[in-house]
Order: sequence, then structure tokens, then C-alpha cells
Amino acid sequence: MTVSPFDHPLLSALLGDEEAARHFSVEADIDAMLAFERALAEAEAECGVISNDAAAAIGSASFRPDTAKLRAGVARDGVVVPELVRQIKAAVGEPHNAFVHFGATSQDVIDSSLVLRLSGAVDHIGLLLSENIVRLAGLEQDFGGRALMAMTRMQPAIPIRVGDRIASWRAPLERHQLRLKEQSARLLVVQFGGAAGTLDRLGDKAAPVRAALAAKLGLGDAAQWHSQRDALADFAGWLSLVTGSLGKFGQDIALMAQGGMDIKLSAGGGSSAMPHKQNPVKAEALVALARFNATQLAGMHQALVHEQERSGAAWTLEWLILPQMVVATAGALRLAAELAGQIESLGH
Amino acid sequence: MTVSPFDHPLLSALLGDEEAARHFSVEADIDAMLAFERALAEAEAECGVISNDAAAAIGSASFRPDTAKLRAGVARDGVVVPELVRQIKAAVGEPHNAFVHFGATSQDVIDSSLVLRLSGAVDHIGLLLSENIVRLAGLEQDFGGRALMAMTRMQPAIPIRVGDRIASWRAPLERHQLRLKEQSARLLVVQFGGAAGTLDRLGDKAAPVRAALAAKLGLGDAAQWHSQRDALADFAGWLSLVTGSLGKFGQDIALMAQGGMDIKLSAGGGSSAMPHKQNPVKAEALVALARFNATQLAGMHQALVHEQERSGAAWTLEWLILPQMVVATAGALRLAAELAGQIESLGH
Amino acid sequence: MTVSPFDHPLLSALLGDEEAARHFSVEADIDAMLAFERALAEAEAECGVISNDAAAAIGSASFRPDTAKLRAGVARDGVVVPELVRQIKAAVGEPHNAFVHFGATSQDVIDSSLVLRLSGAVDHIGLLLSENIVRLAGLEQDFGGRALMAMTRMQPAIPIRVGDRIASWRAPLERHQLRLKEQSARLLVVQFGGAAGTLDRLGDKAAPVRAALAAKLGLGDAAQWHSQRDALADFAGWLSLVTGSLGKFGQDIALMAQGGMDIKLSAGGGSSAMPHKQNPVKAEALVALARFNATQLAGMHQALVHEQERSGAAWTLEWLILPQMVVATAGALRLAAELAGQIESLGH
Amino acid sequence: MTVSPFDHPLLSALLGDEEAARHFSVEADIDAMLAFERALAEAEAECGVISNDAAAAIGSASFRPDTAKLRAGVARDGVVVPELVRQIKAAVGEPHNAFVHFGATSQDVIDSSLVLRLSGAVDHIGLLLSENIVRLAGLEQDFGGRALMAMTRMQPAIPIRVGDRIASWRAPLERHQLRLKEQSARLLVVQFGGAAGTLDRLGDKAAPVRAALAAKLGLGDAAQWHSQRDALADFAGWLSLVTGSLGKFGQDIALMAQGGMDIKLSAGGGSSAMPHKQNPVKAEALVALARFNATQLAGMHQALVHEQERSGAAWTLEWLILPQMVVATAGALRLAAELAGQIESLGH
Repeated sequence: MTVSPFDHPLLSALLGDEEAARHFSVEADIDAMLAFERALAEAEAECGVISNDAAAAIGSASFRPDTAKLRAGVARDGVVVPELVRQIKAAVGEPHNAFVHFGATSQDVIDSSLVLRLSGAVDHIGLLLSENIVRLAGLEQDFGGRALMAMTRMQPAIPIRVGDRIASWRAPLERHQLRLKEQSARLLVVQFGGAAGTLDRLGDKAAPVRAALAAKLGLGDAAQWHSQRDALADFAGWLSLVTGSLGKFGQDIALMAQGGMDIKLSAGGGSSAMPHKQNPVKAEALVALARFNATQLAGMHQALVHEQERSGAAWTLEWLILPQMVVATAGALRLAAELAGQIESLGH
Repeated sequence: MTVSPFDHPLLSALLGDEEAARHFSVEADIDAMLAFERALAEAEAECGVISNDAAAAIGSASFRPDTAKLRAGVARDGVVVPELVRQIKAAVGEPHNAFVHFGATSQDVIDSSLVLRLSGAVDHIGLLLSENIVRLAGLEQDFGGRALMAMTRMQPAIPIRVGDRIASWRAPLERHQLRLKEQSARLLVVQFGGAAGTLDRLGDKAAPVRAALAAKLGLGDAAQWHSQRDALADFAGWLSLVTGSLGKFGQDIALMAQGGMDIKLSAGGGSSAMPHKQNPVKAEALVALARFNATQLAGMHQALVHEQERSGAAWTLEWLILPQMVVATAGALRLAAELAGQIESLGH
Repeated sequence: MTVSPFDHPLLSALLGDEEAARHFSVEADIDAMLAFERALAEAEAECGVISNDAAAAIGSASFRPDTAKLRAGVARDGVVVPELVRQIKAAVGEPHNAFVHFGATSQDVIDSSLVLRLSGAVDHIGLLLSENIVRLAGLEQDFGGRALMAMTRMQPAIPIRVGDRIASWRAPLERHQLRLKEQSARLLVVQFGGAAGTLDRLGDKAAPVRAALAAKLGLGDAAQWHSQRDALADFAGWLSLVTGSLGKFGQDIALMAQGGMDIKLSAGGGSSAMPHKQNPVKAEALVALARFNATQLAGMHQALVHEQERSGAAWTLEWLILPQMVVATAGALRLAAELAGQIESLGH
Repeated sequence: MTVSPFDHPLLSALLGDEEAARHFSVEADIDAMLAFERALAEAEAECGVISNDAAAAIGSASFRPDTAKLRAGVARDGVVVPELVRQIKAAVGEPHNAFVHFGATSQDVIDSSLVLRLSGAVDHIGLLLSENIVRLAGLEQDFGGRALMAMTRMQPAIPIRVGDRIASWRAPLERHQLRLKEQSARLLVVQFGGAAGTLDRLGDKAAPVRAALAAKLGLGDAAQWHSQRDALADFAGWLSLVTGSLGKFGQDIALMAQGGMDIKLSAGGGSSAMPHKQNPVKAEALVALARFNATQLAGMHQALVHEQERSGAAWTLEWLILPQMVVATAGALRLAAELAGQIESLGH
């Protein structure tokens, strides 16, 4: 056990996902924040807000973050950006340092960095989701025609096909693909608003700079959303829909494994007291991750009550929750695909 | 205070919504369940599963529910349907009573009844949502150009326009309209699967009967989803997105009212100890309803872990939560529209 | 389905509890609020704050609430008390009406009324809890020595005694008894603080009036806690501990019933599609109620962030949640006792 | 942002607590698990279950964990213990390796390790809690007699003393001290039950071995609680009560800082866009941590539905939540003490 199993050297092997977690490392965050500041300088130069020389100086400055000072900055300012910008300015040096972060505010950098990394995580999760659908289609092909006793309210009901049960695992995943497509366009957009959302320092260049910035970052262009967190909360809901559907799959497998007649798994977890046991470890982990994400989702929705132009309280709450939901989802998809691969027989 | 303020003769005046609550009365539920059974008989007659005489007898039977027996039935069976079907059969009488509820199971009736009533609630909520958008547009027209001190992290930042703040209230509501449209097609569909989801008693008539049933009920046709609850959980998320956005509106209004300089409200709540006070009661209620729905949402996502072909536990959990979320949302929309109407002045 | 199953004419038969719900009716609330106002007048007369004549007039006034006006009052003021006090004053008439509610504020009345009714609910729940412990002791006596295959991680482990499993159901309930005793002294106390908690209008009579008021109401005396909601949140936690332990009992029973070998129940729920089935309806309802209360608990803890001297938002959130948690707990205890009574055989 | 801010090199400076986090490192966990295995061997030798030579060999074996293999073990078995025991046995060597972990199961090791480390965390949190109470007493001494406008429902009410507001921050903390004392005796107990809770391999030595083991570990002795998780859920509730009360403190400070008249803070967070700002960063973080813990608590209560003799799903869910709640609480207590120390003036 560690503060978070997703960061734990041992437990992350069961519950986490390396590729998803990579997007939430401090290195990935700083890289994305630097990408934002450079893209901003380029966009502002293209729109004539700052000089090309300034943009070039910002783009080429050799920068190595002083992590100890960044850490102290977060403790003091609640956000890393003031100290980070100070360090970038020092690296850029006179006279162009005045144009670093020009017209932007901390939230622009942090939220856009988050979205950039979510974009990578969404690609990864999308692939894992497709893999699960393919694996379930494979199970359908192999075992779909066999018989299974349907269980309703935990009681034997009537015989069905194995394929009927598999369909109840797969159909929601296909709907989740559609949902992700619908909401991605709202989620993967730049955040750029300046001190209070009005891009006050950019005058009539505000719109073109924002559009250019978005394009350079590979994100959609959108009006600032610094106090409108619905796209993030909606995405959190999507993550929990995915883990919830996989939790049903895991629960079903664990129940089938209980009797041992309806399923044969190629591998199970060992016990320190009972060498004969084959525990359906991955199936149970899917249930745990489903209940974890369902729990977390409430917090992301509490964060919708984001007062005024910027709520330190609501914003910080998102940081405590959303990255874990992303990794939990990727971990669950990885586990579900592995579990599907361990199924050697289903039904009769 | 009562078990639920939404059912409370006094508190529902503040927190509830009569039109939304109407859809969750026992009368509305029974009406919808009867509509299901009649439409099913008609559909089955059209497809040649039962005779036209049977369908006519079922459709024209004069039925008055025996509520005491229904209540005892719920306590015994966990669902009202077995006893309800018994009563309907008695009303239909020999020989056609054998064709009442033919091929269906309790969950078909209860879930389809729920969706039928959600359909009405969605229409109502959609109208309230539009009304809010119009009201906020009105505020923008009246006060949008005035000045307001932006507040970030609860500190004065820089001056913005009142219209900038209003946009942060309205833009999410417009996105919620779009989201509702996207998900309605997945939500407002019939549930019809029979004992274990396979419509085992209908043979090759299963698909046409279901399509005809859906059409008669004015719902979309879809494969059974009795153990796939993602559309309901997703809808719950949408409800909480709406109340979350309105909670931000309420929180902002309450904070503006605190100082008293930035806003003038035409009416506020009175105090029993301090006659001079004008409490921003509706604004506070919006925050409470936002936090309520955010809390509930976790439970709807827990219910995604719906084991096997039917989980009494997960299904019952939905009953305890979803109707309240619908009414909380309608109540919040009503309150927000009223609150917007009470704003006599914004900004400077 | 209705807005809340606990208020629903049919579903409350399964999920609710009449005796617990009774404490949350509007009649019980008004009775308790009137008891508060009368006891306050008596206490203030005893301490020389108001005249004995005034107290007598208040105590003997014949009062019938005008519900329509109370309802309008709640919609306007966010609390029922200003209008209720107006009506009481009208009933008392000149000249003593000026001494109704003297020195008190709405929150004093509402919170004390809540505690008074919680006191009754706690007694009821305590009895139900004892009954469950007795029933489980009976099962231990009847079947404790029989054999049962222990299941760990949903796999057969080693044989244990039926009594070992029963102990895991009963031991937590005994700890809950102890916990309730510990926290009752903090929970069942009067709330009396006046406009902002300082009993400003009572001068040096504040402490004796509060002590006398508490004594008359049969509650403990304590400093005002209008913005300190820890005792309520702690009690909500206790309620959820109880339903959580019963949820484990229900889940275990449902799993035992699944195979059908380890348990024999005298009655189960019927199905509308499969007359042969005996569904473990009460066991499933216990799981649903456990997950419901676990969900709600988060909201009661959100309400701890009760800003300044009185938060309309946080306070209203409690109203939406706590009564349902109380009734869910009483309902679960009732169901668990019934379920224990249906067990005809356990183990081998 | 990282997977968890509590593990993040930068964000932990704001939100985490080093001393608390230390108890959840993999090193601390392995140390505690080894302490368990050694104490078990000693206890079993004392009671004549294994030889003194075996206990000496186990106690003195030089052991360095192979982390890569432990990680693979967790992925395979869902728990670290089978592989850890394998490694310890290899270190002990023939012939005594057979007596490593004798009669114990994975859950005994993991749960007892958790409790051992919670014991340290509880001590630390208890000290932080006392420090906060002292700091608030200091504020009372310095500013308690000054005037403050009470705010009820976000509106000016009547003047109170600063000390009245401070009392609403301090009194709950004093109750939390009492609560912790009450529940510690139930929480800080050994878990020792063997394969299915019956200590089947120890025969009539079961009770004395468990008592000796508990004594050696400095924990209380108690019957196995492997499937009874109420003490952990109750402790989680306590943690959230603490952060909830501190969240109220933070919210109050942030609201006071908003107007700027009622409070003077010696330091605030800087902004990257507005150098003039002094953001009440610590106050906002307190609100975020309160809402975080409130959210998490629901998950710990979901985990009460711990089926049969051991639920991999419910148990794993605890791992995902409880350590973070502990660190969030320690972090909040540290922040609150710092924030109290930054208050240079309160009231008028």
C-alpha cells in the first residue's frame, strides 16, 4: 500500500497502467506547460503581438527546471506557474523575457497542459477499448453458441446462449466508443483567457492568437472555460461508465468462477495459505476499480460549483481526482483485456 | 423535513418541482405499466403471437388496482409486477387472461415504464433549460455591458464586463442542450427481453414484436438492456452536469449578494430573528441541489456493476436515486429561472 | 417508483420503515417545533426573561397550522419558521405574542426539532439493532455447529463452522451498539443560539434558559452548534456503518442462496415470468440500502463545509439526505431481522 | 499534476504531508510485514507451535526484497504476500523455512501491516490536531475580544465577537480528539485469522499465539476481522470529520479574505498574471481536501459490503482510498496550523 496504488512500485502492477500514468508525471506536465508557452509565443508573434525575435528566443531557450524551487512555488502560490514562468524568463534572459507567458495566466497553462495530456490518454484508452471489443468478439466466436444458465436476482432462470451474456459485456463498450467521439470535441480544446478570462492584454488580437495557439497545440479552439468545468466532469463520467461496464464483466466472471462449472480460466492468483486456490484476481480488481471511479465521480461533480472567475478550491479538487480516474480506467481496460485472454472455456 | 423534501408538503415548494414529480407518482407508474401491457398485447396480436380477441380483451379490460395487495406484493416479490399482472389477469378474465404480459418479465414493465416517464420529464426539463438560457440572454441584454470586478481565487482581479460572467453561466447550459440531444436516442428506448433477455417465448416474432411495442409506446427500439445500465447512469450524469452549472450560478449570486454592491435582487427570504435580512434563498438552494445530485451520481454509477442477467440489488439502488435526481434538476432549473427573474441590477 | 421509495405507497413496503418515517412527517416536525416554542417560553418564564402570563398564553394557545401559507413561506424564506412563528403569534394574540420565539432564530427551532425526532428514531433503531443481534444469536444456537465451506476471493477455501460466518454478521452489530452509545451524548443536544449563536437578546440569562430548555425537551444541554455539523455527520456515518454491515449479511445470504446448497429460506420473491423462482429479495434489498447509505454519506460530509454563522446551502443539503439515511437504516434493520427469521437451515 | 498529488514531487508540497506519506511507502509496508512475520514466529515459539530455533532463524534471516519479483507477484496474485513469503523462506533456508508465515494468510499480514502503520499515522495526526487547537486558542487570546459582523446565509446579521467565530473552528476539533480516543481501541488491533479466519492450523494455541503476536506488535488483541471492516470505515469517517471541520475554517478564512476588511494574512499565493494579488491558497486547499475526503468516504463505506470470508474486490477498494484519506487529513492539519500562524489580525 502507498498513498496511491497507481503510483506504488508494487500495486501499480495490478491496478495501474504505465502508459496512462506517464501522462501524469511531473516531466510530462512540465513538457506540456513549456509547449504551451512556446506555442503561445509563436502564435503571438504570428499575430504581431510580440516580435519574432522574442518568440525565437523563447522557443530556443535552453531550460532545465529547478524542481526544488518549483516545489516551494507550489506550496506558496498553490500553482506551479508563477515560479515556472520565473525560471523560463531567467532562461530566456533580457530583453525577450518580458514576452514570456504574455497575456496568459496560470490556469491557461495548467488547464491546457492537462488537456494536452488527456488527449494522449484518450488515444491510449480508445485503443484499449477497441482491443476489449475485439477480444469479446473473439469469445463470442469461440463460445457464443454454447449454453449457459441465465441467473436473475442471483437465481437460476432459464438457459441462454453464452453469446447473450457476452453481448451484455460488449454492447456498452461500443456505446462508450460513440460517447467518447461525441464528447472529445468539447474536451480537447485549448484554455486561454488571461487574468480573468477576457484576454485583456491582447485587444483585438485575442481571437486570432487563441486560434493559432490551439492549432499549434493540436487542440480545438474554444472560448475560455476556466470556470466552466462541464467538459471535465462529463469526461470523468465517461471514464466511470467504462469502468462500470468492466466492473459488471469482472463481477460476472468472479461469480462464474465461484462455482467453477461455467468458466475455465488459464491462470488465477495464488494464495499464501492455500496453494490449491486459483483466485479470480483480475476480475475482482475490475469490480474494485469500477467502485473506485464511481466514488470519485461525485467529487468531480462537486467541483462544478466553481465560484466566480476562478476557484482555487474547486480547481484543486479536480487535481486530486481526475488523473486517478484516467489511470484507473486504463488499468481496468488493460485488466479486462488480459482477463478475456485468460478465458479458456465458457458455458457448456 | 420529511423522508424526502421532494415529497414533503412544505419543503417541496422550495426544492421540488410539481410537474417533474408527477411523473414519479404511483399513479403515473401504474398508468405507464398498463400502457406497456396493452401495447404489448396489441403488438403481439399484430405479429400473430396472440389473437386479436385477446388483445382487444386486454386493451378494454376495466382495471382498478388494489393498492393494498400491490403493496404486499412489493414487500414479497421486490417488484410490483407479479401482483399487478395477477390483478390485470383477473380483470381480463377467462379465456384471454393467459395472454396478459405474454413473453414479458417484470423488468420489461418497470424499466419501460421508467423510460416512458423519463421521456415526459426530459421534455419538461428541456423546456426549463431553454427558459433559463433565454433569461440569461435577457440579463446579458440588460446588464451585459456594465462593469464588474472579476474575482479569482476569492480575490479581486481585474475589471470585466457583466456579460463575461453571464456567459460563464449560459455557455454550459447550451452545451447541456447538445448533450441531451446526443444521449436521448440511447435513453428513450423500450426494454423488452422476457425472462432472461432472449425473448425466448416469442421465437422468430421477437424482433417485430419489440419494434411494434416500441413504436406504440413512442419509444426507440433497441436490444434489451436489462443488465446494461449505462444509458441511465449517463443520464444521471447529465442531470448532475445541469445542477452543477446552476450551482455555480447560485454560488456566484450568493457571493455577489454578500457584499450587496454588485447585485440587486427584488426579493429575498426573511428571517425569524432579523427582519432586516434578505437572504439569497434560491441561490443557496441551487448550491444545495448541485451538491445533492453530485452525491447521488456516485450511487447510479455503483449500480453499473449489475451482475448476471438481473441484479435485484443494483436495480433497486437505481430506484432509490434516479427519480430524486430528476426532480432535483427540474427544481433547480425552476429556481434558477426564478432567481434570474429577481435580478434587478447587475454590475456597475 | 416515486420521488423517494421511502415515501412511496408501494415501494416503502419493501424499503422503508413506517415507525422511522413517522418521525419525518410534516406533522411530527410541526409538533416538535411547537414543543420547542412552548418549552422555550416556559424556560424563559422560569428564568425571568418573559412573564409567566406570556408563557402560559403561549403554552395554551390553540394552534392549527395553515399549511398553504407554511408552504408559501418555505418557498420564500427557505425555512418554515418565519411563517410558522407568524401563525403562532396570531394564535397567541395580543399582548403576549411579542414573546413567542423570543431570542430564538429559525435554525434553533429546526435543528432542535430534528434532534428531538432523531432521538425517537435512535430509540427505535436501537431496538431493531438489538433484535437483529438476538436473531443472529438464535441462528448461532440452531446452526452454529454445522459445517460450511469458507469462500475467500469467491473461491472455496477450507471448511469452517456456520457459527464462524454468523459471528462476522453479529460482531459488527455489537460494536455499532457501543458506538451509538458513545455518540448519542453528542448528538442528542438542544440547538439554541439566537440570531447568530450568541443568544444576544438573553444577556446573562442565556445559559440558564438554554439549560432549562434542554431539560424540558429531554435533550442534553450544549453550546450552540449551528455551524458545527460534526455530530450529524458522525451520526450519518454510524447509520451507514449499520447498513454496510447488514449489506454484507445480505450479500452473503444472496450468494448462499445462489447455489442453493448452503441455505434454505422459508420464502422468497416470486417472478412474473418464472413461477419456479424464489428470489432472495430481502437480501438484495439489504445490499441496495447499504450502497445507498454509503453514497449519501458523502453528501453529509460535504455539508460540514458550513460557511460562517449559517450556511443555507450546506444546511439544506442535510435536509435532502439525513432523513432518508435514517429510514434506510431502519428499513434495513427490519428487513435483516425478517430475513434472519426466514432462514430454515444453514450449512451442513 | 500526477496520478496522485500526494505522491507528486511538486503538488505534495501543497497538499501532502511527508510524515504521514512515509507510513505508506513500499519500504514502510515491507518493514511492517516483516515485523509481522518475525513477531509471529516469536509468538509461535513462545507458545510451543514452532521451535525456538525456527523462530531464531526467521528473526535473524538477512532479507533483501526482490522488488521486481514482488511486483510480478502482485500482478499475478492480487496481493504481495505469496511472493514475499517465498522470498523470506528462501532467505531463512532449510530447514526452518517451513515455519515462516505458519498458520497465517495474506490478509493477516497486509491488514496488520496497515494497522501498524495507521498507528504511527494516528500518533502524528493526533499531534497535529493538538497543535491546531493550541493555535486557535492563541488566536482567541489575541483577537477573541474584537468585533466581527456575523454572516448568516451569506448576509450580514448582527455583531459578534471574533472569539465566537473561533469557537466554531475549535470546538469540533476538541470533539474529534475525544472521538479518536474512543475508536482507537477498536482500530489499532491485530488481524490474525489464518486461511479462513479460524486459525485452523494452530488448534488450541490459536488464542495465546494471537495475544502474544498482538503484544509484540504493540497492538490490541482482537478476534479476526478480515471480513468485518467497520473499524476502518469508521476511522475513514473520523478523518473526513477532521477535514470537514478544517474545510469550514478554510472557507471562512477565504470569505473573510475576499472583502479584506476582517482579516490580515501575512502571506498569500502569488499570481502569474496579477502581481498585486495575495491568494488565500492554504484556505482554498483546506476546502479542496475537505471535499476530497468527503467524496472518498463513500468508497470506504461501499467496501463494507465485503462478501463471504474475504472479498478481493472490497479489500482492494480500501487500498485505493484509505491511505490517501490519511495523508489528506495530515496535509489539511498541517495547512490549517500554518494558516492560523499567518493570521496577523482578525476582526475590528
